[in-house]
Amino acid sequence: MSDQTAKTAVVPATHAAPPAKFSHGVRKGNILQVAGQVGFLPAVPGEAPTVAGPTLREQTLQTLANVKSVLEAGGASWDDVMMLRVYLTDVAHFAEMNEIYNTYFDEQNLKDAPAARTTVYVGLPAGLLIEIDALAVLG
Amino acid sequence: MSDQTAKTAVVPATHAAPPAKFSHGVRKGNILQVAGQVGFLPAVPGEAPTVAGPTLREQTLQTLANVKSVLEAGGASWDDVMMLRVYLTDVAHFAEMNEIYNTYFDEQNLKDAPAARTTVYVGLPAGLLIEIDALAVLG
Amino acid sequence: MSDQTAKTAVVPATHAAPPAKFSHGVRKGNILQVAGQVGFLPAVPGEAPTVAGPTLREQTLQTLANVKSVLEAGGASWDDVMMLRVYLTDVAHFAEMNEIYNTYFDEQNLKDAPAARTTVYVGLPAGLLIEIDALAVLG
Repeated sequence: MSDQTAKTAVVPATHAAPPAKFSHGVRKGNILQVAGQVGFLPAVPGEAPTVAGPTLREQTLQTLANVKSVLEAGGASWDDVMMLRVYLTDVAHFAEMNEIYNTYFDEQNLKDAPAARTTVYVGLPAGLLIEIDALAVLG
Repeated sequence: MSDQTAKTAVVPATHAAPPAKFSHGVRKGNILQVAGQVGFLPAVPGEAPTVAGPTLREQTLQTLANVKSVLEAGGASWDDVMMLRVYLTDVAHFAEMNEIYNTYFDEQNLKDAPAARTTVYVGLPAGLLIEIDALAVLG
Repeated sequence: MSDQTAKTAVVPATHAAPPAKFSHGVRKGNILQVAGQVGFLPAVPGEAPTVAGPTLREQTLQTLANVKSVLEAGGASWDDVMMLRVYLTDVAHFAEMNEIYNTYFDEQNLKDAPAARTTVYVGLPAGLLIEIDALAVLG
């Protein structure tokens, strides 16, 4: 049984090491914070991270899968998520992202209320169209 | 009496349904997260959301009113807010937004310390000049 | 001994008053929120805030020092930080910021896991290259 009052790194097996001294997720007590995730495919040892594809659909679904991996590695699920921050690079992507988002969450069969969300339009490194981070509070 | 350990959606009567599967607010235990609010007027059933007006003043005041509605629907007040994130579209709006912000909070007669805040400049959908989200911790 | 259930402003001695009605930090219970910090040098009474310098290195190190000041004034340390949000103005600064960030945190000798982090590219007022805010959960 882990000490729930200590702060621990949450490290999904599928994730490459972060590009700097930060954790993909951290948990302390009942709070789990997920770092900004992008559409990288599961890491292949010794290779640079690869984006799931050039389309918003591919990247949104992979980004959501990556957030979910961190949640699960931290003992949480989508039902525990309080807030999602969605960063897009193009206002024109809003409607399509919402469609993908809605279908994705329909398939997750949430028992609880959906998380709150903020969407803003920012710059991201070349080739990336979406980044998402999450705050979860475990029950 | 609601079960404060369950995660519940916070739904102000005045708010239109969100444009995707997210909640305007969620509460779990003593944490209340308010989703990004913009300057939409109270919803009129069957009509698309309408922005309070084209000016920064109109939108800032309506956005703050919308955040407050979510706080109150979740059993909280401005005094419980720990953090406000303010997203503006134009650096030239900073001084005016601060004036509006200060006058607004003077009128709220806070008993506690003001919330922390971060302001950054991003893109928003056409016609929107400001978005604000909030994290509250209830006493 | 302070009342840990009240919400209190966290005011480092070195910080100028915020440019509006917000707190550089607020603490309530075991949660400490640090407002967006930029690369301003310690305040000189009666003078306008001065940026540490024009380079990313100067501003990143000063910004991290300013976050740390708020943490310490709130009874916390880097080890308590769950999340850092890094706002840069230029995607081309990512690699250099990570180098500075890694060296800085190597020198902090963290006992716990590094915080989660999100980095996005936004606008900031003229002359500012970086802004960072932080969420800490005390042990």
